[in-house]
Amino acid sequence: MRIGIVGGTGDIGEGMALRLSTAHEVVVGSREAEKAVASCTACEEILTGRGLECSLLGVGNQAAVDAADIIVLALPFKHVAATLGSLRGFEDKIVITPVNPIERSTHFYYAPPPEGSAALMIKGMLPESTTVCAAFNNIAAKKWKILDEVLDYSVAVCCDDEGVKRQVMDLVNGISELKACDAGPLAAASMVESVTPLLLNVGRLNKMRDAGVRFV
Amino acid sequence: MRIGIVGGTGDIGEGMALRLSTAHEVVVGSREAEKAVASCTACEEILTGRGLECSLLGVGNQAAVDAADIIVLALPFKHVAATLGSLRGFEDKIVITPVNPIERSTHFYYAPPPEGSAALMIKGMLPESTTVCAAFNNIAAKKWKILDEVLDYSVAVCCDDEGVKRQVMDLVNGISELKACDAGPLAAASMVESVTPLLLNVGRLNKMRDAGVRFV
Repeated sequence: MRIGIVGGTGDIGEGMALRLSTAHEVVVGSREAEKAVASCTACEEILTGRGLECSLLGVGNQAAVDAADIIVLALPFKHVAATLGSLRGFEDKIVITPVNPIERSTHFYYAPPPEGSAALMIKGMLPESTTVCAAFNNIAAKKWKILDEVLDYSVAVCCDDEGVKRQVMDLVNGISELKACDAGPLAAASMVESVTPLLLNVGRLNKMRDAGVRFV
Repeated sequence: MRIGIVGGTGDIGEGMALRLSTAHEVVVGSREAEKAVASCTACEEILTGRGLECSLLGVGNQAAVDAADIIVLALPFKHVAATLGSLRGFEDKIVITPVNPIERSTHFYYAPPPEGSAALMIKGMLPESTTVCAAFNNIAAKKWKILDEVLDYSVAVCCDDEGVKRQVMDLVNGISELKACDAGPLAAASMVESVTPLLLNVGRLNKMRDAGVRFV
């Protein structure tokens, strides 16, 4: 299974590349391919320094889409529309969105687009044959990149295709101590996305650094 | 501290009465006072049968408001507006809302009123001098009533008054193994309320009975 990461040089993207590339072929995309190449070199050094084998390739975002079966959109919400508008070739592929539309006043709050969630907006921008799946929404960006951090969280997964959902849940369960939870169809993703600003508030107000969530 | 429970004979109300009345004076309100009296008698039997002392009084909803310093609205969302419209005397009191506006299609989803959350709608229906606090939103109703169930969850608390918030967080921390988390101002309550339909989906789809949440 080849996984492409669009926006793969950001915090979450780089962390996912680190944690996924020891078990999967990972193609890291960036607006500037050189940044993706540099990021992959850095990741390889970390992983080989630990005696781990990995498969990483740094390319432009379009090449990451073209090369992959599963594409992770590791983008801030505000860049999603422009980035998706500049890419093509998503037909028959799986797109994972960990994207959360969040704004901040006195506190962080959920600010979804008119479609109701980032996930539904993304679905609307992609071809009919693309299967969109929300996952990894509630994991703090910083936790991804530190390999010594055990990721012991629940990961709510929303998708309209049960087979794809199961495939993504298996991908989730292969990372650290993450536990995938079926959270329903893609239309239910708004409730998953809105947990993230809640966690940002909880983290800030209770001195819980990079708070995460467990369903028990 | 005297706690009044409006709607105190429902699942959550009765469970809260059971769990709070060993440490606080609890006044259980119901539309029909006799139902509240019967519910209190049943609670007393359970508690005294375990050798626990308790303070329980069954009355009508209005008498529960009148007698209490802190009032819990243990009501389904659909009954909140009519019930609050029929009651008065909330001036200078603390109102706790565990209320979640939820609807169901193929899945459970968050269906807030135009105010943005049940908490903000409730605030709008009460006098200026009432302090509204969202708490206990994400605990499954059935868990409350079974005293042998350890409630080992996080409880997000939202309130605009820091002193009242602290008081409610102390109340939360006194129940079983609940851990209160400051989740910001009342305007942030929508993100807390919307965790509940997410938990209902997670519980149903992953065979996790009465799923709850922990922030870690």
